[in-house]
Amino acid sequence: MLNEDCGVFGIYNNDNLDIVEETYLALLSLQHRGQAGAGLAVNKDGEIKCLKDVGLVSEALNQKNLEKLPEGNIAIGHVRNVRYDLTDPNIDRAAAQPLVIRYINGSLSIAHNGSLTNVVELKKELELGGAIFQAGCDAEIISYIVASQRLISATIEEAVEKTMNKLKGAFSVVMMSPSKLIGMRDTNGFRPLCIGKLKNSYILTSESCAIESLGGKFVRDVKPGEIVVVDDEGFHSYMNNCKEKTSMCVFEYVYFARPDSVLDGISVYQTRRKAGAILAKECPAEADIVCGVPDSGIPAAMGYSVESGIPYEIAFIKNKYTGRLFIQQEGKIRDRTKKIKLNVLSANVKGKRVVVVDDSIIRGTTSANIIKMLKDAGAREVHLRVASPPLSNVCYYGTDIKDKDKLIAAAKSLKEIEKQIGADSIGYLSFDGLKKTVEDSQVGVCTGCFTGEYPAEFSKKIAVDRYSEKLSY
Amino acid sequence: MLNEDCGVFGIYNNDNLDIVEETYLALLSLQHRGQAGAGLAVNKDGEIKCLKDVGLVSEALNQKNLEKLPEGNIAIGHVRNVRYDLTDPNIDRAAAQPLVIRYINGSLSIAHNGSLTNVVELKKELELGGAIFQAGCDAEIISYIVASQRLISATIEEAVEKTMNKLKGAFSVVMMSPSKLIGMRDTNGFRPLCIGKLKNSYILTSESCAIESLGGKFVRDVKPGEIVVVDDEGFHSYMNNCKEKTSMCVFEYVYFARPDSVLDGISVYQTRRKAGAILAKECPAEADIVCGVPDSGIPAAMGYSVESGIPYEIAFIKNKYTGRLFIQQEGKIRDRTKKIKLNVLSANVKGKRVVVVDDSIIRGTTSANIIKMLKDAGAREVHLRVASPPLSNVCYYGTDIKDKDKLIAAAKSLKEIEKQIGADSIGYLSFDGLKKTVEDSQVGVCTGCFTGEYPAEFSKKIAVDRYSEKLSY
Amino acid sequence: MLNEDCGVFGIYNNDNLDIVEETYLALLSLQHRGQAGAGLAVNKDGEIKCLKDVGLVSEALNQKNLEKLPEGNIAIGHVRNVRYDLTDPNIDRAAAQPLVIRYINGSLSIAHNGSLTNVVELKKELELGGAIFQAGCDAEIISYIVASQRLISATIEEAVEKTMNKLKGAFSVVMMSPSKLIGMRDTNGFRPLCIGKLKNSYILTSESCAIESLGGKFVRDVKPGEIVVVDDEGFHSYMNNCKEKTSMCVFEYVYFARPDSVLDGISVYQTRRKAGAILAKECPAEADIVCGVPDSGIPAAMGYSVESGIPYEIAFIKNKYTGRLFIQQEGKIRDRTKKIKLNVLSANVKGKRVVVVDDSIIRGTTSANIIKMLKDAGAREVHLRVASPPLSNVCYYGTDIKDKDKLIAAAKSLKEIEKQIGADSIGYLSFDGLKKTVEDSQVGVCTGCFTGEYPAEFSKKIAVDRYSEKLSY
Amino acid sequence: MLNEDCGVFGIYNNDNLDIVEETYLALLSLQHRGQAGAGLAVNKDGEIKCLKDVGLVSEALNQKNLEKLPEGNIAIGHVRNVRYDLTDPNIDRAAAQPLVIRYINGSLSIAHNGSLTNVVELKKELELGGAIFQAGCDAEIISYIVASQRLISATIEEAVEKTMNKLKGAFSVVMMSPSKLIGMRDTNGFRPLCIGKLKNSYILTSESCAIESLGGKFVRDVKPGEIVVVDDEGFHSYMNNCKEKTSMCVFEYVYFARPDSVLDGISVYQTRRKAGAILAKECPAEADIVCGVPDSGIPAAMGYSVESGIPYEIAFIKNKYTGRLFIQQEGKIRDRTKKIKLNVLSANVKGKRVVVVDDSIIRGTTSANIIKMLKDAGAREVHLRVASPPLSNVCYYGTDIKDKDKLIAAAKSLKEIEKQIGADSIGYLSFDGLKKTVEDSQVGVCTGCFTGEYPAEFSKKIAVDRYSEKLSY
Repeated sequence: MLNEDCGVFGIYNNDNLDIVEETYLALLSLQHRGQAGAGLAVNKDGEIKCLKDVGLVSEALNQKNLEKLPEGNIAIGHVRNVRYDLTDPNIDRAAAQPLVIRYINGSLSIAHNGSLTNVVELKKELELGGAIFQAGCDAEIISYIVASQRLISATIEEAVEKTMNKLKGAFSVVMMSPSKLIGMRDTNGFRPLCIGKLKNSYILTSESCAIESLGGKFVRDVKPGEIVVVDDEGFHSYMNNCKEKTSMCVFEYVYFARPDSVLDGISVYQTRRKAGAILAKECPAEADIVCGVPDSGIPAAMGYSVESGIPYEIAFIKNKYTGRLFIQQEGKIRDRTKKIKLNVLSANVKGKRVVVVDDSIIRGTTSANIIKMLKDAGAREVHLRVASPPLSNVCYYGTDIKDKDKLIAAAKSLKEIEKQIGADSIGYLSFDGLKKTVEDSQVGVCTGCFTGEYPAEFSKKIAVDRYSEKLSY
Repeated sequence: MLNEDCGVFGIYNNDNLDIVEETYLALLSLQHRGQAGAGLAVNKDGEIKCLKDVGLVSEALNQKNLEKLPEGNIAIGHVRNVRYDLTDPNIDRAAAQPLVIRYINGSLSIAHNGSLTNVVELKKELELGGAIFQAGCDAEIISYIVASQRLISATIEEAVEKTMNKLKGAFSVVMMSPSKLIGMRDTNGFRPLCIGKLKNSYILTSESCAIESLGGKFVRDVKPGEIVVVDDEGFHSYMNNCKEKTSMCVFEYVYFARPDSVLDGISVYQTRRKAGAILAKECPAEADIVCGVPDSGIPAAMGYSVESGIPYEIAFIKNKYTGRLFIQQEGKIRDRTKKIKLNVLSANVKGKRVVVVDDSIIRGTTSANIIKMLKDAGAREVHLRVASPPLSNVCYYGTDIKDKDKLIAAAKSLKEIEKQIGADSIGYLSFDGLKKTVEDSQVGVCTGCFTGEYPAEFSKKIAVDRYSEKLSY
Repeated sequence: MLNEDCGVFGIYNNDNLDIVEETYLALLSLQHRGQAGAGLAVNKDGEIKCLKDVGLVSEALNQKNLEKLPEGNIAIGHVRNVRYDLTDPNIDRAAAQPLVIRYINGSLSIAHNGSLTNVVELKKELELGGAIFQAGCDAEIISYIVASQRLISATIEEAVEKTMNKLKGAFSVVMMSPSKLIGMRDTNGFRPLCIGKLKNSYILTSESCAIESLGGKFVRDVKPGEIVVVDDEGFHSYMNNCKEKTSMCVFEYVYFARPDSVLDGISVYQTRRKAGAILAKECPAEADIVCGVPDSGIPAAMGYSVESGIPYEIAFIKNKYTGRLFIQQEGKIRDRTKKIKLNVLSANVKGKRVVVVDDSIIRGTTSANIIKMLKDAGAREVHLRVASPPLSNVCYYGTDIKDKDKLIAAAKSLKEIEKQIGADSIGYLSFDGLKKTVEDSQVGVCTGCFTGEYPAEFSKKIAVDRYSEKLSY
Repeated sequence: MLNEDCGVFGIYNNDNLDIVEETYLALLSLQHRGQAGAGLAVNKDGEIKCLKDVGLVSEALNQKNLEKLPEGNIAIGHVRNVRYDLTDPNIDRAAAQPLVIRYINGSLSIAHNGSLTNVVELKKELELGGAIFQAGCDAEIISYIVASQRLISATIEEAVEKTMNKLKGAFSVVMMSPSKLIGMRDTNGFRPLCIGKLKNSYILTSESCAIESLGGKFVRDVKPGEIVVVDDEGFHSYMNNCKEKTSMCVFEYVYFARPDSVLDGISVYQTRRKAGAILAKECPAEADIVCGVPDSGIPAAMGYSVESGIPYEIAFIKNKYTGRLFIQQEGKIRDRTKKIKLNVLSANVKGKRVVVVDDSIIRGTTSANIIKMLKDAGAREVHLRVASPPLSNVCYYGTDIKDKDKLIAAAKSLKEIEKQIGADSIGYLSFDGLKKTVEDSQVGVCTGCFTGEYPAEFSKKIAVDRYSEKLSY
């Protein structure tokens, strides 16, 4: 399972909304982007209160504590996925966001999605200026730079712009000064960030589904390199840093984002469905039914079915009650619980030739298990179709595809994979096919994890080592 | 939302299985049959240990306590739905099952699914013999009768058979004496009960999905009126009480059971899909897409689509993380959370004429909300199709369809319903259509909630009053 | 450490008191009588709601749930100590009191302190009548007998009186029928029970400290054999069962009761202080200071000091924060925490000859530890004085002095004990001395644990076995 | 109730000790110095793991998480009392100690007791250098200064010494670099800090009771202005900053410290007992008994009794089970629980003239309540004697005596106080008497809270405002 590094949300209240509640609900809608921690900070007349902890939104932010927060005029929130160190809950807790700091110009609160590629250089520079690090997350680095740039800038906007110039890598950030809600998206636009309105109030958030869940309206995406500011004079946009070449993470479409979101102009669901359709043409199969691996393989399976004419069927029933058990349990029972998460609907697959569609393959263990379940339930043949190209390179921009050794497609040929996972045939979407799924996007895509070619130059060694750096805090 | 009153499970260990773990996992697979409480009892050489509490399986049975239970030779388990009294957690806790009792012949442990219709008479009779009631559930009544019959019976089997003769109404029971696993299903067969094998060990449980989840094999259903016993001499069946006329609850197929279960010979999923297909013929619609209300309306929607030729589409994305929040939250935020549970995938419905299929309508509020969401997302027309007939009568056999006033179809005409929920048209499956979906069942069906005609004679007044009786404990 | 089996409380509301709150606070004051479980039941117009669980009062009865209970006219409460089986939390939970039952005449709720000596015979008799046992505590037996006697009695009072005649052993019971608060104390008066008034409302409870804590006034003790009833016509007393020979447990004065309670006419504190004074005469010592083992040895130490003229000093500082840690912790850290519970105030004992007074010795391990601590802190000599006679016999009346093998005084001579625990000298209060401490009591004393002579005839074998019986539920 | 701001502990492992366990147990012994938060950090070969949270030691540091910590060579711990803001648990959490930071020279971990008086100036200076503050506690300021001094120092020792020169006010600090355990005590010595040995391992901690609880030996106090360092070459002391004039907080003796601790050469218990004896001479009373207010008034009451010849008696029984309930409860029940914490032992006070001794009076409400309880229990006269002078000034050095308006002695005359609290007479220890109690101390005392004269010059306005500063984070 791949994990995305975070979801962010911010709201500037122009309507007497209960923005703590709005932020809490928005984080529930962004929960798929991070289940390891959640937090929200609310600003009432310049005073910031923050609530955050490890765990799901519902665990980290309990209602009793939420009710103690003041009604405010700006709020930001964050869900987080990376668990740096499972053996030390305090490291996770320290790195929980939003980060709330106090500096020469008052308070600042930050929520970040992405991954800086020059974090090691930036830290060294800051340490030589006497900096101490407590949180150990990129948001802390960004805060420090905003604070130091603020000393030599006339406005917070100027400080943020200068900060953006010093940061490399992926960052979609939502910030809150005592009186302003600020958003910035890196010049490549690696991670999504969009603008919405709820009545007269402005929203900045990772995905449009969070806006719609609140009953708000999607306005537009933040452009790569753009800084947006909402204050008591309204909405402002600063595009001095915008570049021509942009590269949104294609994996947001393949797996990370929620299907009901629209990112940079295209529907996530539609890209997946389209992937399935192209896949049907590129890798046809003689089969009786097409099914998808819940939940992310379903849209592609439906696309494959329509294009191929092979009937779409439900093959797996998902147990809705096993969600967090993996985390609470230990040992043998944990593995067993994992297995009962899916059960095959035997009546639909018995004696049949089955095409099963998944969004991607990481290590191959899930695929092997899926195929075995179908065969145990009586499937005559199982043809695995993957709605994205072979995944064979690490990511430096905020996902946890960090260990090339664990990627089955990095080391094995198609035939070897087929054999290892027990499929009667296997077919991946072509790289061209993938590009076609996002051809209507307003932004170029980063496909580094498929091609090994990355949109921004940097020292790869350092970028990878930053993780072990972090662990040594 | 309708709620089924329970799921039961029992296993007789012939393989050095860790039956505590097997039972725990089976209960996870039966969780959809009851989320208010869970428990399991394990028998090691005649000594019974029990763990049970209110809440989900994962809440009621924590791993730390499970590990303290002995490895045993027989175990039974239970999930429960009815919450008699929300203001008194102890009533819920006292009524948690399995019920473990000690009587003249040692220990007895019972898990029950269903509802007795002569409970008031039985209680009166027992009280006149000096009985005291602590649990306030049908399982306590059944235990008392087994205990008193045991005094005048040569064997436990004889006592159970005599007990069955005294009980009226719905009961699928799994019991555990110091050395035997015993199952019985009422003569009507109102609630499901089936037999499976895991290696050489026998399983008795409500639904086949629990057997398959463990990796076991479904053997057959317990016949209405049958008593089955597993002991160290193997498997025994007693069919003296079997009657010709039987009546399995049709709502198990419509809504209660998990789609991957096979009940009395037919696949639950297939009955739902068939219902959708018949519905398409009975209530056609001019539309661009067909969608289903997650999760139970999906199979019928797929059946409707194939039969009608209107493309099937996903219209709703379900938030997987809001599950238990309704129970933990209070006030306004609770309603809000309820609403963000589903979000419309606007790209798929905008400007379209939509057929939306649900399994049934109880009060109509959910339907109204669903339709509003589709219209808000830009659907041009919304045609509601319901994959079962109008629900207009109470149930006496173990579901919580108890209050006729709350059933929208009991009071209003089709036109009135259509108007109230805001549909452009509404269509229900006909009663004949419903019967066709289950025509291949090995057992007749009870359709009392649709027709008001019940398979067994009894004082309806008393049957209803028993619930208020219970509350006065 | 010895443990008493329970504390009971009941209140009949004549003042619009919040009796749930009064009962909760009273249980906090009775907490020393039982830390394994707590519960309270409240009766509003005949309907009884109950809240109970394992753990301390503060753990078992949380405020959120208490607030959901109705304002009622009668309430009873219970704290409990015996933990039948540490490996099965459900057994503990099932046996939690008050027990609430429903029988032919409605509801009944019972809280019991003591131990029946004919429980095996009573159970057999009930089982032959078809009884089933769920709770496995004496309160369940008592409930059954009240229920069956009620069938052949004109009034509840008559049924209770008949019940009293069938019960043997120790029982101080507080009961609640739909309209009455009822108390009974066994004819020996083994366990305390007293009457108080809070404004115009009546209280029945184990110790007077509970009455005073609420701001109420102690009225008098319930007489051994007396039944008291409070209803809407006021207070009633029934003394038909009172006998001449009575025998209150002397260990209530030695250790169980709180020092600020007055039992059967004498102050617990004063009996302990008197014991210390007599001990000083019987077992003098050449020493520089007298100190007491906290908390129960303090009053006797002060008595010893005044009588002997040797200055009283504080030698031990008790860590107030280690209370419940023993229960939560496991392994080595548990033992360590136990040890840091007391620290010696070295400045007061260094180079001194110390008399240390404790209330009693069970196994001798605590004494040995205490003496070692004093010596390690520099005490020149340590003379142990025990404010009760050698404890060498089991108890059948509701304490957990059940295992003679573990009583150091049952097996060893004074010299052997002295040597084993490392004291320079040891001295016990004489049996005559003990009798003198309670000579002003209005009730005779049971001294079975010191003498092996018990006030009531019964089959000792059976009385002891009842505990193992219970375990096999 | 007065609250001290913290307790600190550090250990350098030379014996294969389980130093996580030792630190945990030591914190339990220091719990009286802070109940709002607890934490410990352990250093294994330069890598620091930390566990900390709000609440008692037993709540903040659960055994499961403790067991995950590595066996290390250095550990430090902290208990904390100040709750900056009850409405924001995250502020408390952020300010929890030990603070673990990473700076140019690796990791650093700090635990602090006291209060800096030049924190505002220091913060301003740091902010102008680009600092950001996350924790909002003095330990963060100290960390920053150590980090910046380290940049211009050859060794960590030198950096610490320079840091000490920049800090003003009260600070007893225990620090841990990757390879050293470091302690420092401000030049006035406001807060205690002492050195102990456990086998061959060194301990630094606030009070000697923590050393003894572990079975270790007290070595000596850290001198005011001294820096001590333990590393693999042994123990080192740096006294360059030591001044002649020192001023340990006298309130440590009056109330804060545990009676079994020895601070700067004198026994806390003995100073309290001496205070009682002097008080008896200064403020005699005609009375029948002397009693103390538990727990801190007891030693002084015993001193008063011996000096005056009036018998010492126990008048109050403390409920051991109400400890944390005040924090968990809300509303009316909270006040009631507070009241039942103490019950008068009526038998000892009825009809008597009572001298009741307390350690100090803050607002007078507790005293009024105590006197009322004694009178309600039948005391004929109640004479309050206070074992310290009238408390009428705020403290700037780490206690929470911050609000002069709440100090009864600041506004009222003796007669007015007497009347307000309902005493028949009141008598305070004289200031000279107080000085006599600590005349054997190796260190001078700060008596600012009694006299308003403070040992160190500073801007009082700023020192007070720093608290409101903190709240605005």
